[in-house]
Amino acid sequence: MTDILHRIGVKDATPQQVYDALTTVEGLAAWWTDDTKEHDGVLQFRFPPVGGFDMQVVEARPAERVTWRVVDGPEEWIGTTIDWKLRRDGDYTIVLFEHLGWKEPVEFMYHCSTKWASYLLSLKSLVETGQGAPAPRDVRISDWH
Amino acid sequence: MTDILHRIGVKDATPQQVYDALTTVEGLAAWWTDDTKEHDGVLQFRFPPVGGFDMQVVEARPAERVTWRVVDGPEEWIGTTIDWKLRRDGDYTIVLFEHLGWKEPVEFMYHCSTKWASYLLSLKSLVETGQGAPAPRDVRISDWH
Repeated sequence: MTDILHRIGVKDATPQQVYDALTTVEGLAAWWTDDTKEHDGVLQFRFPPVGGFDMQVVEARPAERVTWRVVDGPEEWIGTTIDWKLRRDGDYTIVLFEHLGWKEPVEFMYHCSTKWASYLLSLKSLVETGQGAPAPRDVRISDWH
Repeated sequence: MTDILHRIGVKDATPQQVYDALTTVEGLAAWWTDDTKEHDGVLQFRFPPVGGFDMQVVEARPAERVTWRVVDGPEEWIGTTIDWKLRRDGDYTIVLFEHLGWKEPVEFMYHCSTKWASYLLSLKSLVETGQGAPAPRDVRISDWH
């Protein structure tokens, strides 16, 4: 089983600032996708016209950790887990990201790995500068967008 | 065992163009690091003042595939394999990237996963526009650079 793993450092930011960008609709919409909603503890991320993801928030420990379970979206994503760990290290907040539970290393997973990196840099930019690059203004990485 | 997997699409480019950027010192220096040399079939990538990697080229099939074995560098990298598969798909050359053989999913691996994504986007930009972002002008992603 292969997981997607990433690490970024957000400069001159507290873990709480990053946590806010991961747990508020306003924050999420500013780095992942404009079209973000919340309904009964489920986060709904949409990427028109392609589709999107519904995430159940299974853990939210302020300034430390956020965990989502994918409850709807592409078949390969359903049942997978997305985990964010935050910690302060000098001038940086370190973000350890994991997307766990992929059944097979399908080509779509290769794409999602690169795309997650690009969105993590959008998150970093949002917290550092106030400006992220959420969909539909995200970085295009391939024919799959 | 966890692998690093990525996928990009290089627009309006042939697999041979991407292959050239992966197999010539001039190409490699224009997206990964300025300080690239070749000696007896071993590619030497340096990132002053930090260190670097020596890669034995174990496969080079024009316009299709390149495989490197890491023969020197950080302890976690030695003995790992980096594999590039290229194919044409419509207007794009699709690049499937794998960094295989990590013994443990250490935090350095999380970092390398994100950093590889950023260098793959540098490779894409180089082939599409003539301009990459190799070290030392690479995208800074954290305290680890």
